[in-house]
Amino acid sequence: MTDRLGVAVVGYSFMGKAHSNAWRNVGAFYPDVPGVTQQVLVGRDHAQVDDAARRFGWEESATDWSEVLQRDDVHIVDICTPGHLHAEIAEAALSAGKHVLLEKPLTNTVAESERLVACATEAAGAGVVSMVGFNYRRVPALAHARDLIADGRIGEVRSVRAAYLQDWLVDADAPMTWRLRKEQAGSGALGDLGSHVVDQVQFLLGDEVTSASGRLHTFVPSRPGADGSEPVTVDDAAWATLGTRRGAVASVEVSRMAFGRKNGLTLEVYGSQGSISFGLERLNELVVDTGSGGARVLVTEPDHPYVEAWWPPGHVLGWDHTFTSQAADFLAAVAVGTQPSPGFAEGLAVQRVLGAIEDSSARDGLRVEITAH
Amino acid sequence: MTDRLGVAVVGYSFMGKAHSNAWRNVGAFYPDVPGVTQQVLVGRDHAQVDDAARRFGWEESATDWSEVLQRDDVHIVDICTPGHLHAEIAEAALSAGKHVLLEKPLTNTVAESERLVACATEAAGAGVVSMVGFNYRRVPALAHARDLIADGRIGEVRSVRAAYLQDWLVDADAPMTWRLRKEQAGSGALGDLGSHVVDQVQFLLGDEVTSASGRLHTFVPSRPGADGSEPVTVDDAAWATLGTRRGAVASVEVSRMAFGRKNGLTLEVYGSQGSISFGLERLNELVVDTGSGGARVLVTEPDHPYVEAWWPPGHVLGWDHTFTSQAADFLAAVAVGTQPSPGFAEGLAVQRVLGAIEDSSARDGLRVEITAH
Amino acid sequence: MTDRLGVAVVGYSFMGKAHSNAWRNVGAFYPDVPGVTQQVLVGRDHAQVDDAARRFGWEESATDWSEVLQRDDVHIVDICTPGHLHAEIAEAALSAGKHVLLEKPLTNTVAESERLVACATEAAGAGVVSMVGFNYRRVPALAHARDLIADGRIGEVRSVRAAYLQDWLVDADAPMTWRLRKEQAGSGALGDLGSHVVDQVQFLLGDEVTSASGRLHTFVPSRPGADGSEPVTVDDAAWATLGTRRGAVASVEVSRMAFGRKNGLTLEVYGSQGSISFGLERLNELVVDTGSGGARVLVTEPDHPYVEAWWPPGHVLGWDHTFTSQAADFLAAVAVGTQPSPGFAEGLAVQRVLGAIEDSSARDGLRVEITAH
Amino acid sequence: MTDRLGVAVVGYSFMGKAHSNAWRNVGAFYPDVPGVTQQVLVGRDHAQVDDAARRFGWEESATDWSEVLQRDDVHIVDICTPGHLHAEIAEAALSAGKHVLLEKPLTNTVAESERLVACATEAAGAGVVSMVGFNYRRVPALAHARDLIADGRIGEVRSVRAAYLQDWLVDADAPMTWRLRKEQAGSGALGDLGSHVVDQVQFLLGDEVTSASGRLHTFVPSRPGADGSEPVTVDDAAWATLGTRRGAVASVEVSRMAFGRKNGLTLEVYGSQGSISFGLERLNELVVDTGSGGARVLVTEPDHPYVEAWWPPGHVLGWDHTFTSQAADFLAAVAVGTQPSPGFAEGLAVQRVLGAIEDSSARDGLRVEITAH
Repeated sequence: MTDRLGVAVVGYSFMGKAHSNAWRNVGAFYPDVPGVTQQVLVGRDHAQVDDAARRFGWEESATDWSEVLQRDDVHIVDICTPGHLHAEIAEAALSAGKHVLLEKPLTNTVAESERLVACATEAAGAGVVSMVGFNYRRVPALAHARDLIADGRIGEVRSVRAAYLQDWLVDADAPMTWRLRKEQAGSGALGDLGSHVVDQVQFLLGDEVTSASGRLHTFVPSRPGADGSEPVTVDDAAWATLGTRRGAVASVEVSRMAFGRKNGLTLEVYGSQGSISFGLERLNELVVDTGSGGARVLVTEPDHPYVEAWWPPGHVLGWDHTFTSQAADFLAAVAVGTQPSPGFAEGLAVQRVLGAIEDSSARDGLRVEITAH
Repeated sequence: MTDRLGVAVVGYSFMGKAHSNAWRNVGAFYPDVPGVTQQVLVGRDHAQVDDAARRFGWEESATDWSEVLQRDDVHIVDICTPGHLHAEIAEAALSAGKHVLLEKPLTNTVAESERLVACATEAAGAGVVSMVGFNYRRVPALAHARDLIADGRIGEVRSVRAAYLQDWLVDADAPMTWRLRKEQAGSGALGDLGSHVVDQVQFLLGDEVTSASGRLHTFVPSRPGADGSEPVTVDDAAWATLGTRRGAVASVEVSRMAFGRKNGLTLEVYGSQGSISFGLERLNELVVDTGSGGARVLVTEPDHPYVEAWWPPGHVLGWDHTFTSQAADFLAAVAVGTQPSPGFAEGLAVQRVLGAIEDSSARDGLRVEITAH
Repeated sequence: MTDRLGVAVVGYSFMGKAHSNAWRNVGAFYPDVPGVTQQVLVGRDHAQVDDAARRFGWEESATDWSEVLQRDDVHIVDICTPGHLHAEIAEAALSAGKHVLLEKPLTNTVAESERLVACATEAAGAGVVSMVGFNYRRVPALAHARDLIADGRIGEVRSVRAAYLQDWLVDADAPMTWRLRKEQAGSGALGDLGSHVVDQVQFLLGDEVTSASGRLHTFVPSRPGADGSEPVTVDDAAWATLGTRRGAVASVEVSRMAFGRKNGLTLEVYGSQGSISFGLERLNELVVDTGSGGARVLVTEPDHPYVEAWWPPGHVLGWDHTFTSQAADFLAAVAVGTQPSPGFAEGLAVQRVLGAIEDSSARDGLRVEITAH
Repeated sequence: MTDRLGVAVVGYSFMGKAHSNAWRNVGAFYPDVPGVTQQVLVGRDHAQVDDAARRFGWEESATDWSEVLQRDDVHIVDICTPGHLHAEIAEAALSAGKHVLLEKPLTNTVAESERLVACATEAAGAGVVSMVGFNYRRVPALAHARDLIADGRIGEVRSVRAAYLQDWLVDADAPMTWRLRKEQAGSGALGDLGSHVVDQVQFLLGDEVTSASGRLHTFVPSRPGADGSEPVTVDDAAWATLGTRRGAVASVEVSRMAFGRKNGLTLEVYGSQGSISFGLERLNELVVDTGSGGARVLVTEPDHPYVEAWWPPGHVLGWDHTFTSQAADFLAAVAVGTQPSPGFAEGLAVQRVLGAIEDSSARDGLRVEITAH
């Protein structure tokens, strides 16, 4: 494969910036995957998207994503819009035969996600590749953790203790935003943060969550809006206890009200012969205990996942490198025509767990079984 | 009060050793409380208790606790037996007019605990003092945390993230013990470890747990016994989500199967204006965040609770010092005739929460309300 | 300034890759500095440099740096070669009127550095900008530390405890490399690692080192070379005690033999009213103590230096981001025609301190005064 | 040996309290060593020493140490006075045939120490036991570190990075005390803190320091005294680079001016096959790296040194436990008639190193060789 693949990204704010960074840099660090051309950046505001396109290294900008999907020089569509637009754009892109990288969450509802999975499955038959953007799977420490667990290094996993804590809503006078309205955001802390946690539980263990007991809570039920006080209609914290097919139990806590936690994704996995701990604020480190104390491993050695592409030992990576490695994995799949992981079905599996947690919360904590299909 | 108070301890193994240490040392560090005489150590095996008495500094040993309760030179009875004997001995001691210090848990059942509280309340009318031995309340860092919270330093508490993780049962071939039989132990990880956690939640917040949703689990359902495989009839891990009267939510996880955690009691308290974190394996430290990052405070300054009795700044305390400080608080209460905290009613409150967690688990996680009386 | 500036980088291996990354990304994150064109990557091996140029985003490659210096479409020359080539290329570039960014160390000898400073001073008169690449000055946490110190937040600085420890030579059988030959490398751990430490001491304190007592040591005096055992002619560890103009004392330790330390630059600054600690392996964190315990600050807030250009709070940066921020500062200086910091004179000041440490070591530790010029 | 040994402690303030605690508790935790009677506490102020004796568990108090040395019911003399009294009391006690435990430093001068070693050597011939109280040798983590090093677990030791940092003099207005007058204290931070560090270097490595280069500094040269400003005649910080007989290099930094460090003894030992790190503020922990990352070992397992005497795994010890274990080792030596370690000769070796550091400082850092005798 010698020709370069044309990429279009839809969305140019936070995620659009992060994904643009990935496409701009993937070739420098991953020389063995297909080369790309940053063809077009798509957004609604012409002036803003044009400015962003210039800064982020794109050849062009556009405001109509449906037109972009028809271009022959676009082979990959990377969707970074808010969640309620995911299904429509992704379906159109797949139908147009474009490979699709879709930011998490897959969609805002289980029903939409199911339809989208069907669509991706059909497209896969025609060699079209699709992937959902759980970028934390490309944190070297977490990929290394998954490998250690898969290799049996900590024995049979019995329990997981997980949390994702932030504090940007800790002030009760922080203003209303669309993220706090259910009709736009779909969910609060659970969907935003819990989706990463649930994906990691399934990724790290190579197992499926099959039951959930949960509780959602809104500590600050109304906030200052443009027209006075406005009700907050999503959770600002959530708790769950999950069961897996192989018998592990995972506890999950997510919050936007945890004073002092900036990006506090923490994961502890306890097995019969060892344990593993991780914290996203120190994303180059993994604590591994197989009987001699918890060893802090700086996951920057050449034989650690993804690391060889980057820098020598001890030269730490940051948050954004995960997106570049994600793009590389996506391109590698395109090159050989296989489906990358996490595929849309894995995104749907996460949505089902989040749905079960919400159901359980509505039923005062009663455990809900998750039927796979 | 110039005369020395005579003390009898019932039990001479792990807890008896720790309590003996407290009585032997309390006078050296707390000169303002009544002096004590280590009068008699009580146990069932004559030779062993006699040997222990000599080593631990006791004047005498005895094998019949009921006789000891009648002695005029015994003013304080300190009960360190297994939980199923607590109620009988404590009731007899209170009836005999002795001040009672009772190791946690108060008793193995809510019903017994309720009877014992009634008994203590009656005795209190006659000036008899009683206290339950939640020694972690005397960890300087935790007492300091409670003070900070009570002073409003972290604002209104919204959530608590708590765990008590150990690993002594991680090996599925570890042999059966009485601690894994429900009829003797009453409970597993929940009662043993969860009781400390629930007490701390109520102590730190100065609040009451009023509802609970929980799950108990036994990862290793049978273990090698004297006569072959024997069923484990208690939990080896438990999870709960608790609600408090003032609207906070606490998540609790306890386990005896958490590889690598030796005595891993961890507490994080999140308020509207700050947060506090603590880990028992580093019991001289408290992390306090009120807006400038999580500050690691070495709780060894003279103005920190209990510290002035001990050593200069930076000269750290250990686990056993908490028992000595506990004895000092008990003696101070005896001196002035007030009831110390935690009293038996506080021990009962913990038992009620543990009971609700078990009930909820039996009902598939359904939330259970805790009616105070 | 609307036209884009043409950049040439000389060198395409480790540092060339890092600097290429900076030029490729600076425009995306720093929209307010002049735009750049990655004009030409220069190296000795035609095939290799051409391949690197394509991957790293360069328009062209070249093998003759002296020709490149004459090109009108090259405005900036960024030198990433080994140290013994620095002086020659930099002098030629400055003479050709090109702005120069030069990787540290300035040169391998004090004499060369002095000549180069004179050359840069002359060029500055003609509006030519020059800068030495001590990239760690652009670690947000260290720039923040410098600001706190300059603002008097820790009072008068009394002492600094600094180290830079790595372990890549810990194995006595690790093979000989050019880095261990004095004629090529100039110096060992001292020049490679100590230069960063000394620069940080002067940068953080805004002070000058004026005396040094030092010791150099070679633990493994010979290593396997191509033709059998070969002598190691540079230090593999060094120690120094430095005095500053304002009366502070700094201890410095550097090593390539410190088992388990991958990139262990650690800095502790003690003042009369506070202290600051930093470790490069956790480069997003700064511990600041002004009286309430050492607060771990996650230096990812918008008001921290450099952070606003990147990602939201808690989304950590890596090692390579420092080069991009360095390029931005360089471009900002070019835009307004001022000299950026650290200039060549600051690079020379570091060399003088390293020279004094070597002198002292040769004189059995006797303190050596550093005369500024 | 069935009879109890009578102990006299000379001194009843900080060290007297710590040593009293040790004698009061040693029998409870170390049943296999000879039992002791806390016979007499000696001090100059009758009322105060009498009060202390009562609180700390002593049979009697006395004000004349020379009389006490003649008593038949005193077999052990434990000297906790200021350093300038050490030689006189210890010599008298040894001459009277008493076993002697002497708080560090051995004496204030090398000459006095040499005379005292001669005296102890002579007494040893008559079966009299003597020991110097470097209590940190009985920190389980440090004793464990020594064992690991002796077993070759980290290979050949190449370097040690050590510090002992405190902050009680950080305020320039802190008042004058006898500890800051050379004629009484002998030395400042170097003697007080550096003695522990040098002893640990020799203890951990099983090696001898044979050369030293050093620097002493007094940041605050005068302080408020009773009669106005008074000169500080000792160092308040010191730095040294030490060489050992087997070729290791140790860097040492001590300070009473290190803002935020309360009792910051830190030790890092780097070998050819591993490294070990320790910090006294977390004295139950040892970080051990033999190739899989730095493993945090909680040194509370039964097979760790001293631990079995105390509590179950995870039940951490404090600072004072080291004195109790020290007393046990001393008593064990008395029981069998061997000389315990560290003996007076080891105390003298430390004094010689401290003396060499002072000499070097007076000679502008020039390295000083330490001739053993």
